[in-house]
Amino acid sequence: MAKPIYVLNGPNLNLLGTREPEIYGSDTLEDVRAACEAKAREMGLTIEFRQSNHEGVLIDWVQEAREAASAVVLNPAGYGHTSIALLDALKALAIPLVECHLSNPAARERYRRRSYVSEAAAGVVSGFGAMSYTLALEAAARLAQQQG
Amino acid sequence: MAKPIYVLNGPNLNLLGTREPEIYGSDTLEDVRAACEAKAREMGLTIEFRQSNHEGVLIDWVQEAREAASAVVLNPAGYGHTSIALLDALKALAIPLVECHLSNPAARERYRRRSYVSEAAAGVVSGFGAMSYTLALEAAARLAQQQG
Amino acid sequence: MAKPIYVLNGPNLNLLGTREPEIYGSDTLEDVRAACEAKAREMGLTIEFRQSNHEGVLIDWVQEAREAASAVVLNPAGYGHTSIALLDALKALAIPLVECHLSNPAARERYRRRSYVSEAAAGVVSGFGAMSYTLALEAAARLAQQQG
Amino acid sequence: MAKPIYVLNGPNLNLLGTREPEIYGSDTLEDVRAACEAKAREMGLTIEFRQSNHEGVLIDWVQEAREAASAVVLNPAGYGHTSIALLDALKALAIPLVECHLSNPAARERYRRRSYVSEAAAGVVSGFGAMSYTLALEAAARLAQQQG
Amino acid sequence: MAKPIYVLNGPNLNLLGTREPEIYGSDTLEDVRAACEAKAREMGLTIEFRQSNHEGVLIDWVQEAREAASAVVLNPAGYGHTSIALLDALKALAIPLVECHLSNPAARERYRRRSYVSEAAAGVVSGFGAMSYTLALEAAARLAQQQG
Amino acid sequence: MAKPIYVLNGPNLNLLGTREPEIYGSDTLEDVRAACEAKAREMGLTIEFRQSNHEGVLIDWVQEAREAASAVVLNPAGYGHTSIALLDALKALAIPLVECHLSNPAARERYRRRSYVSEAAAGVVSGFGAMSYTLALEAAARLAQQQG
Amino acid sequence: MAKPIYVLNGPNLNLLGTREPEIYGSDTLEDVRAACEAKAREMGLTIEFRQSNHEGVLIDWVQEAREAASAVVLNPAGYGHTSIALLDALKALAIPLVECHLSNPAARERYRRRSYVSEAAAGVVSGFGAMSYTLALEAAARLAQQQG
Amino acid sequence: MAKPIYVLNGPNLNLLGTREPEIYGSDTLEDVRAACEAKAREMGLTIEFRQSNHEGVLIDWVQEAREAASAVVLNPAGYGHTSIALLDALKALAIPLVECHLSNPAARERYRRRSYVSEAAAGVVSGFGAMSYTLALEAAARLAQQQG
Amino acid sequence: MAKPIYVLNGPNLNLLGTREPEIYGSDTLEDVRAACEAKAREMGLTIEFRQSNHEGVLIDWVQEAREAASAVVLNPAGYGHTSIALLDALKALAIPLVECHLSNPAARERYRRRSYVSEAAAGVVSGFGAMSYTLALEAAARLAQQQG
Amino acid sequence: MAKPIYVLNGPNLNLLGTREPEIYGSDTLEDVRAACEAKAREMGLTIEFRQSNHEGVLIDWVQEAREAASAVVLNPAGYGHTSIALLDALKALAIPLVECHLSNPAARERYRRRSYVSEAAAGVVSGFGAMSYTLALEAAARLAQQQG
Amino acid sequence: MAKPIYVLNGPNLNLLGTREPEIYGSDTLEDVRAACEAKAREMGLTIEFRQSNHEGVLIDWVQEAREAASAVVLNPAGYGHTSIALLDALKALAIPLVECHLSNPAARERYRRRSYVSEAAAGVVSGFGAMSYTLALEAAARLAQQQG
Amino acid sequence: MAKPIYVLNGPNLNLLGTREPEIYGSDTLEDVRAACEAKAREMGLTIEFRQSNHEGVLIDWVQEAREAASAVVLNPAGYGHTSIALLDALKALAIPLVECHLSNPAARERYRRRSYVSEAAAGVVSGFGAMSYTLALEAAARLAQQQG
Repeated sequence: MAKPIYVLNGPNLNLLGTREPEIYGSDTLEDVRAACEAKAREMGLTIEFRQSNHEGVLIDWVQEAREAASAVVLNPAGYGHTSIALLDALKALAIPLVECHLSNPAARERYRRRSYVSEAAAGVVSGFGAMSYTLALEAAARLAQQQG
Repeated sequence: MAKPIYVLNGPNLNLLGTREPEIYGSDTLEDVRAACEAKAREMGLTIEFRQSNHEGVLIDWVQEAREAASAVVLNPAGYGHTSIALLDALKALAIPLVECHLSNPAARERYRRRSYVSEAAAGVVSGFGAMSYTLALEAAARLAQQQG
Repeated sequence: MAKPIYVLNGPNLNLLGTREPEIYGSDTLEDVRAACEAKAREMGLTIEFRQSNHEGVLIDWVQEAREAASAVVLNPAGYGHTSIALLDALKALAIPLVECHLSNPAARERYRRRSYVSEAAAGVVSGFGAMSYTLALEAAARLAQQQG
Repeated sequence: MAKPIYVLNGPNLNLLGTREPEIYGSDTLEDVRAACEAKAREMGLTIEFRQSNHEGVLIDWVQEAREAASAVVLNPAGYGHTSIALLDALKALAIPLVECHLSNPAARERYRRRSYVSEAAAGVVSGFGAMSYTLALEAAARLAQQQG
Repeated sequence: MAKPIYVLNGPNLNLLGTREPEIYGSDTLEDVRAACEAKAREMGLTIEFRQSNHEGVLIDWVQEAREAASAVVLNPAGYGHTSIALLDALKALAIPLVECHLSNPAARERYRRRSYVSEAAAGVVSGFGAMSYTLALEAAARLAQQQG
Repeated sequence: MAKPIYVLNGPNLNLLGTREPEIYGSDTLEDVRAACEAKAREMGLTIEFRQSNHEGVLIDWVQEAREAASAVVLNPAGYGHTSIALLDALKALAIPLVECHLSNPAARERYRRRSYVSEAAAGVVSGFGAMSYTLALEAAARLAQQQG
Repeated sequence: MAKPIYVLNGPNLNLLGTREPEIYGSDTLEDVRAACEAKAREMGLTIEFRQSNHEGVLIDWVQEAREAASAVVLNPAGYGHTSIALLDALKALAIPLVECHLSNPAARERYRRRSYVSEAAAGVVSGFGAMSYTLALEAAARLAQQQG
Repeated sequence: MAKPIYVLNGPNLNLLGTREPEIYGSDTLEDVRAACEAKAREMGLTIEFRQSNHEGVLIDWVQEAREAASAVVLNPAGYGHTSIALLDALKALAIPLVECHLSNPAARERYRRRSYVSEAAAGVVSGFGAMSYTLALEAAARLAQQQG
Repeated sequence: MAKPIYVLNGPNLNLLGTREPEIYGSDTLEDVRAACEAKAREMGLTIEFRQSNHEGVLIDWVQEAREAASAVVLNPAGYGHTSIALLDALKALAIPLVECHLSNPAARERYRRRSYVSEAAAGVVSGFGAMSYTLALEAAARLAQQQG
Repeated sequence: MAKPIYVLNGPNLNLLGTREPEIYGSDTLEDVRAACEAKAREMGLTIEFRQSNHEGVLIDWVQEAREAASAVVLNPAGYGHTSIALLDALKALAIPLVECHLSNPAARERYRRRSYVSEAAAGVVSGFGAMSYTLALEAAARLAQQQG
Repeated sequence: MAKPIYVLNGPNLNLLGTREPEIYGSDTLEDVRAACEAKAREMGLTIEFRQSNHEGVLIDWVQEAREAASAVVLNPAGYGHTSIALLDALKALAIPLVECHLSNPAARERYRRRSYVSEAAAGVVSGFGAMSYTLALEAAARLAQQQG
Repeated sequence: MAKPIYVLNGPNLNLLGTREPEIYGSDTLEDVRAACEAKAREMGLTIEFRQSNHEGVLIDWVQEAREAASAVVLNPAGYGHTSIALLDALKALAIPLVECHLSNPAARERYRRRSYVSEAAAGVVSGFGAMSYTLALEAAARLAQQQG
């Protein structure tokens, strides 16, 4: 399985560790990337780790992943609750998609409960901070293996 | 009437023909462009055919069309259901706007029934695949003629 | 393709041209019929053009069209928003159904946004006055041809 | 003012006096007609008093009234809560329309609170049994006079 | 029947004739009072005509009317849509209550459609300007007579 | 018990057996009539079996049944979800009313869950195809016997 | 067909005949059992008749019925409106399920209109007191025969 | 860390592998238990694996876990959407709680989207079949370690 | 504890005993005052018992109680469901507040279920007629003692 | 009056004093029982004090109380918001029912505001911790006396 | 411009500085008045600064301002969310109206988001404590100048 | 205070003065910039004035402002009603945020009433055209000073 797993991060995740740490924890996005790369090495696979504040850029990356990736792990952040355009791009993926969240949206504001992304995801991992990513990566790798 | 009709396409329409063909059909966006250009030649007018996954880019193009176009045909895809910003740009158009859709949103998910774009459109054509575009183009041309 | 296309008109459309012209335009239903017949001749086909204020009569005609027509173009007017009985009759059609509206219901009162008819229609054309009918007729003819 | 006032009655009002008298009272529709005719004579005008269980027939009569009547008094009964088609016919009236009800719908089931007819009516009289009609007739006559 | 009919007017009705005349007409509250008194004389009865901007004062008057009046005609204005306290006072009336409105609330803002007062009223007259009052007075007098 | 039981059928039931057989089964309305008549003979009673696509006609028949029938079995089809006028006619019946449905509306579209007819019915039988009718007939006969 | 039909009764049905007799009638649950057994003998089959106030026990019995029964007749009482867990158990049944009710829930409190059980049921019989059970038993036996 | 992790399973999970396999997969609950025990051995910890169809029993077990367990992994099944009583028991836990689901509730019926359990959970893992449990176990063990 | 407990009564409570006795009982407000004073003597404390139909007056009294009272017992009647202004005044109280009702609002009209007052109250006693007041007084005295 | 008053406690109340003390206080359920027994002795009556986490057990106890008790005091905890089955059992009680709560549900989460139990209760006492029980007991005893 | 600007304050604002200072700050209403007067002097105009807890008094003052003031600055406090009567009075103003709030209602309880007053206001200033008033005064003065 | 205040403008504000002038006035965005710069000079501070149609660009600028600005004035235009991603960026600001609008959204379409931005803003100024900006700038400067 030579193709990498895409780990895509939505808006404001570049601020991780400095923004509302009581909700999101003190790890930075670089810490999350490091944890993902460690996990990837442990599982013998590679990842492509990116972040953007632009909805359109995230859609472009999801489209790119259709050919270039073996699976996608996505933390859509704010766009997960509002973007039907992102959902449409995700529905066009034939490879496994795993949604992940640092915190547990079900225990937050009402408008964070609706997730368009979930409708296209194989599964969801939420609430465990950086560990949400490594568990999601583990799940994505297994699903890709089963499908591959 | 020297100005072209702008035919603008929203997010994921570049994937046409490969994504959910049971809903959107097997024509690619290039096929749609070809059909539109054939129709335009037949009616003796020119078109400007574009696609973007970026909401901001679509808004820029709609603003550009205020001066550069005689009419706009728009398939807003996912942004049609969520973008008040796009609606505001469309409301500032003084030229005819025709909304078109490949499939019939009224027969799909509930969240696809709300169309902000429709509030600014002269009319709507939906459900006929590529033919939705050529019928929309025909209508836009007539409306531009009446107004011109 | 010897069978005609049925062009059916719902309640109050007999008043066309005299009722709320700022919404529905100044064409009368006879003008619409004439435009449809011209279009039909141009496409080498025949139409059966009717209007009724009675929901039950419209259902009877839709049932009749199952055998007698090659396609149906329907402007359900007020019954489109309220009649599940009409929807059930339309669902029993095996031939193409195209819904059309003179004005754009999406830009009007909230209770005009819900269309039961749309759930059974292949596609919809709305907002172009009498041109909504001729575009709908064109679409219906093509769909009948593909199916025929 | 030679044209009569149309007094139109919707479904089941022919059963008046025998159906749920604790709500609708013991007057029959003939009693109501007699009261209306007495009132009309007193005001020096004529009425055309009719009842139908058929929505389409009521729409036909409202359309007829556009030319033939000086005003319309309408008790839409069950159709008042559900018929957009009837509302559309009423909106096309250029003469005064007064809605009347034997009982007070605001004090009954929730689905009787919505009145489409009210959106087209100059005013409403409800709750006074047969007297609702004579008061409505009085109001309609005055409005017709002012307009005439 | 020696006791007067109370004609009670809610908040801002003292501004009548100067406030939003396109909705409420150009009659002043004094004109309405004069019309009511003329009608009362014609029917051989007396009225007590009052206005207040204070919810509590209106409740006090309704309580006073229990002993002092033969019937109540009430235009609750803004309090009709919000005051459960006024409704409770009206429910304690054993004499007839007729609600009246200058304009037709059903054709205005959504929050004007809910009327708590209607739940306690025998009937409602709305939409006829000052004539709403005289028709209401006529109905109230008849109901008081039947009951008396 | 000399009076027949009325078995009334609403819109589109004349298409039974040809329309959406995966929902409604392959029995025709003639088959249903035959089953009902067999059941009636078995119970020693007579039926009057009718179908109409017209809401007004169904209301006329329900009114007729007040004198002419010992009970009513009604499959209101599409009108059951939308017709307050039909409900009002049914409420005026003093004889037993049994509602029946070929399929189970609770397991279908959301707008098929609301049944106005149920508010006037003694009971409901749904989901058993033609057997829904014979069970309903059995129940109606028993209720008529108890009441008679 | 040696396997019995399970007739399962939910909470408070053991109080039948003593609780709110104006809604539920004066038959006791023993009377209902007797009627069911008589009907079963008449049809040449056996029943297993049980009642419990415990949701978990009802789920256990439904699971047991998967192997042990030929069909299930269920009066879920209060749990029908609230128990997704019971619904899940019912969905796992491969044998016919018929829901029955003594009274007609559609004519009662709003929170009694929602039935989770109906989503898994082949059909429903409601409103006929003990006769609801015998009709349901008849339907269940026929469906089991067709399937067997 | 001598105390076991409780792995608790709600109603109908004993049917796993036989019920709606297109949603829940073909693993039985014994397979899930085996996977959990393998994972536990790998992490050097013990588990207590139980299932019940009874809401009260699940609450008893959660209360027992307050003293007896180091963490809880809970698949509440149907009770997760309806049980405030279970939520209250979970809120009284001082040890980590991880919610898990075999399938992804966000992509199913509307009434499966509401999870009371999520309000008390540290995090959620859903959609990966038996792997949902082993990922949840991994997360629970880590959280217990951090807290311990 | 020298300061009195304020017992404040909202609109229409002065009519107690004469208004809707089937809901509110036959005790007059003087009877309630007497019961409260007896209870106060029994507990060795004093009360200040008042009633007003004016929302503003009730707010003035609540503000006065901040200094002058040891606790407040409030029956807000109709204003409890609508007055955010009264709620704001109550939130500014530092002394205990107990809400009481003669009848049980939860068993009445839907619009009586919302209580703004409850959001500021320590506790609520409802449904016991005059005894609601004496129990509330007892609770208020205890809470004042604990706080004092 | 020899029969005891049943004091029944719903799910998780056995954890009282250890669970969320900022909401429920530090008294244990044994403390509450002691306070109730002291109050009962003071009033010269006996109580039967029980707790269960099982909805079905609570329903069984309520049914038992129909014969065995003179009144019921019930703290339904979580089941009060969700159990129609418990409500049905309570409606079948002919003796007085008083609902009580330690805290004030109106000031907590939205889903705690709906109380099915309240629809069957004579009255409610909430917000006073253990004192809610003793006040409820006092009220229940008085109501039983009046009724007895 | 000789007429003063009316600065009107709704219920409980007399408690400013002592009530919920974490929301409303520690300035008293006298401090706010002083700041407004300083600002007024700086702009060379006069103000009339008042407060009332009575809805009716506020309406009287708004009516008085129609003649006596050049503009109105209004902090409606609790009445802004509930009073249609106050809205009606404000709509009758021909002079500029500026709404102001000490805190930002959009970030508070849901029932504080609805502002009837906003529908009549030229503009709104909220969230800046006493500075909200001085900015509002500045805006009101400019608007009055433009209009004057 | 050397850092500038960022004045950020959302989509379509570059069209100011040419688009729907009856709502937004005739000032262009250059006029607004000039007014802001004049105000800034008057207050002895500097501003950074920008506009973008791209949601992602606005988020990037807000993130940049965390270090580079002393305060932010934001007119989010269409994105204010739909962008949770923008809200998340704003929540991560430690400097004052003032939201401003040219018109008053509370008096426009329903979908313009919801403002995500308001949840993160210290305060809001709306409805005064270009003056909304200068008042917002004044408020932002004061808040920055207090915080600085």
